[in-house]
Amino acid sequence: MGSLVKDITDREVDFAKWYTNVCKKADLVDYSSVKGSMIIRPYGYAIWENMVSVLDKEFKKLGHENVQMPLLIPESLLNIEKEHVEGFAPEVAWVTYGGSEKLEERMCIRPTSETLFCEHYKKIIKSYRDLPILYNQWATIVRWEKTTRPFLRSREILWQEGHTMHATPTEAREETLRMLKVYEDFQRNYLALPVIVGRKTEKEKFAGAEETYTIEAMMWDGVALQNGTSHYFGDHFAKAFGIQFLDKDNTLKTPYQTSWGVTTRMIGGLIMTHSDNRGLVLPPKIAPIKVCIIPIGEVSQELDKVKNILDKMNITYKVDDTDKTPGFKFAGAEVKGYPIRIELGRRDLDNGFTTLVRRDNLEKIKVDNLDNIGNVIVDTLDDIQKSLYNKALERRNTMLYEVKDYDEFKNIASNGNGFIKINWCGNTACEDKIKEDTGMKSRCIIDEEVDNVCPVCKNKAKYKVYFGRQY
Amino acid sequence: MGSLVKDITDREVDFAKWYTNVCKKADLVDYSSVKGSMIIRPYGYAIWENMVSVLDKEFKKLGHENVQMPLLIPESLLNIEKEHVEGFAPEVAWVTYGGSEKLEERMCIRPTSETLFCEHYKKIIKSYRDLPILYNQWATIVRWEKTTRPFLRSREILWQEGHTMHATPTEAREETLRMLKVYEDFQRNYLALPVIVGRKTEKEKFAGAEETYTIEAMMWDGVALQNGTSHYFGDHFAKAFGIQFLDKDNTLKTPYQTSWGVTTRMIGGLIMTHSDNRGLVLPPKIAPIKVCIIPIGEVSQELDKVKNILDKMNITYKVDDTDKTPGFKFAGAEVKGYPIRIELGRRDLDNGFTTLVRRDNLEKIKVDNLDNIGNVIVDTLDDIQKSLYNKALERRNTMLYEVKDYDEFKNIASNGNGFIKINWCGNTACEDKIKEDTGMKSRCIIDEEVDNVCPVCKNKAKYKVYFGRQY
Repeated sequence: MGSLVKDITDREVDFAKWYTNVCKKADLVDYSSVKGSMIIRPYGYAIWENMVSVLDKEFKKLGHENVQMPLLIPESLLNIEKEHVEGFAPEVAWVTYGGSEKLEERMCIRPTSETLFCEHYKKIIKSYRDLPILYNQWATIVRWEKTTRPFLRSREILWQEGHTMHATPTEAREETLRMLKVYEDFQRNYLALPVIVGRKTEKEKFAGAEETYTIEAMMWDGVALQNGTSHYFGDHFAKAFGIQFLDKDNTLKTPYQTSWGVTTRMIGGLIMTHSDNRGLVLPPKIAPIKVCIIPIGEVSQELDKVKNILDKMNITYKVDDTDKTPGFKFAGAEVKGYPIRIELGRRDLDNGFTTLVRRDNLEKIKVDNLDNIGNVIVDTLDDIQKSLYNKALERRNTMLYEVKDYDEFKNIASNGNGFIKINWCGNTACEDKIKEDTGMKSRCIIDEEVDNVCPVCKNKAKYKVYFGRQY
Repeated sequence: MGSLVKDITDREVDFAKWYTNVCKKADLVDYSSVKGSMIIRPYGYAIWENMVSVLDKEFKKLGHENVQMPLLIPESLLNIEKEHVEGFAPEVAWVTYGGSEKLEERMCIRPTSETLFCEHYKKIIKSYRDLPILYNQWATIVRWEKTTRPFLRSREILWQEGHTMHATPTEAREETLRMLKVYEDFQRNYLALPVIVGRKTEKEKFAGAEETYTIEAMMWDGVALQNGTSHYFGDHFAKAFGIQFLDKDNTLKTPYQTSWGVTTRMIGGLIMTHSDNRGLVLPPKIAPIKVCIIPIGEVSQELDKVKNILDKMNITYKVDDTDKTPGFKFAGAEVKGYPIRIELGRRDLDNGFTTLVRRDNLEKIKVDNLDNIGNVIVDTLDDIQKSLYNKALERRNTMLYEVKDYDEFKNIASNGNGFIKINWCGNTACEDKIKEDTGMKSRCIIDEEVDNVCPVCKNKAKYKVYFGRQY
């Protein structure tokens, strides 16, 4: 019983180690000899499959279509948009040989696919009738990161990247915010993450974008996780690639572009928000297996009954019928984060009840009538989903600060993590100074009224901004 | 009307050109500046998504779990199994730089993932309790091909690769054949392909496998398409990687392995079997859009009615309400291969009927009662599915030959394509000679009684084998 839990460092002691322990002990990931990459194991991949399934339906409902672009980008194609190549060239993996032949032009493994989409758009966009184009791609990308942590930072990332083209800036901006909202709703409603949304500063925006919007989640330790971005490109890329369309008024115009993406990083966000010292905790709506049944003693008849009920109600479950002790199985179910475990014991049944245990708060629920267990489970899953969100929200709120004075800012930052809201002049110099003094970077500009001066330079403030340390 | 069709070369004139024309005109693929790769456009990708959806459910039903292995393989890892590396090293893409830093050890983009799975299996397999391991991966692989043709041969391939480990050779062999059967059933029942299944010769088997089983489809022009393979590895890889498990009898044993895969090449197989000079023809069960409705005149009320019926019956459709002429729309629907088009015309409706047109044989079906159109469509889709299979089977059977004499073999081969069945001694020398004389390679060894000598060397035959040219 203890051995599983003992191997997980307490998060209060070493959060980074706790995180890696949970990822490994819950069988989400493994390492290999491929430095900087991870293996996503079946249980981890099933979480990703659930995420993909929900998001893909949402994207399609809004008219998006999936495509598949090449994995490799020739250097000359990457070079077309100046800011973009400067942002990405230092961190791409270069293919220089095909078999034993040196390539005439080296190619990088896509770090993102704006350039590939733009080259294609130049060919297929001719008329206003061709717009909007609403494409999405589920793909693997590579960025040559120096440090690696499972799901958070690795050289290979699974993600989706939406790329859309519109006749007007207004339509493109609407799309940028529409998709940001899809991410926000998904993270709140499915992942139970109380996220903050806003716009990135000039310094932090995507290489080549005009505006970058972001989903900022706060982890249990108060550190930020950028958990999805949506970019408005204006016509920068379209101009660089010479994309034009004949509008209704018979003149040639340049279309306006967006891109937006989320990655397997969301799994890291889930873990660092909800999990605890016993292991993984998963919001029921995204958990691959909702219920773990642990039979104790001769209960085959009752087990069949429960399985029938769950099958009929389409509730995923697994039965732990290994030869381990019940205590060991309980601990195992906790490490894996199954939202509910059913302790289906002969003695309990003879005494007229069965025990459910909620993973989120370990509360025990006695079910007197086995016929009713399905309804109790549905209600409990629903309550767990809400409780996880509320608990995360409460914790986050204790680490949200608002200051007007720079000494106060530095004082909070030196005492720990969290998000600190300030008025800001809009100058990168002040943003850089905060980073240098405190290690905190701007998270996002939020849509709130400015009511004071920038605490760093004392000049008139233009924006309200959150700062925080980040993964 | 003509312009779409005119751009498609007749398949009788130039089959290769016809094929590329259909792929492009039906908006399945496009090219980019990335030599050797293709863009899979939304309509092409939707076909792949349907294939993935059906197969993924089948795999999971049989207990397989999806994982994600790294994209890159360090050279030393690829080198562990000798036959395997000799088979693949000449055709891999090598990554030599990460950003501006030269890598200490170069890495290839996976051409297949046996080595990655084996390294992982060595870590996670300890006991007989850990077996069988039934993993599958949906992934992009890269093989540096010299020639490229959409879906058939390209440097980047979308595929799935199953990799399983078993306690005994018997179980592993059963798995090899079980998955071969899954492929065969899928291709017959969904893709309407009358495939031949069998075992590859020593010469043609997968690099590192003990036995390779194959699905061989014959294209309209009589050329073979290897449309899926399933490999039994014995314990070759497991030994090379030092994978062992403690069996029930408390001794250390080496497990037995399989792998199996199908790719986007199946889309090429669909096209080259069923499509015609008017464009794409798709079996209804795999077609992303089953019905195309073309309104002619003021029919908005009837259009709503038909849409309602199709929505309720969960039949996918699209309405062509562009400002093109009906004739142009008919041709467009034919190029795209929608199994049924509905010509919803005011005049026809006033005369008491509506016309459906089957894409496969262009037969017109008059529907007198619009309320009944859903049932007619369901029956017609079902009939199209069956007809396509039967038509493909009939055509294939006209190009199946069986010969006992080598002159007869050469005579058939010099007059055209097709599959020629012979008795074979089992020696690679005879296989090579046939290749040299006729350009035909062995397709597969089939499970039929041997009744004569090898026509090449006149020695005693061991096997019945099909030969044919291949894509």
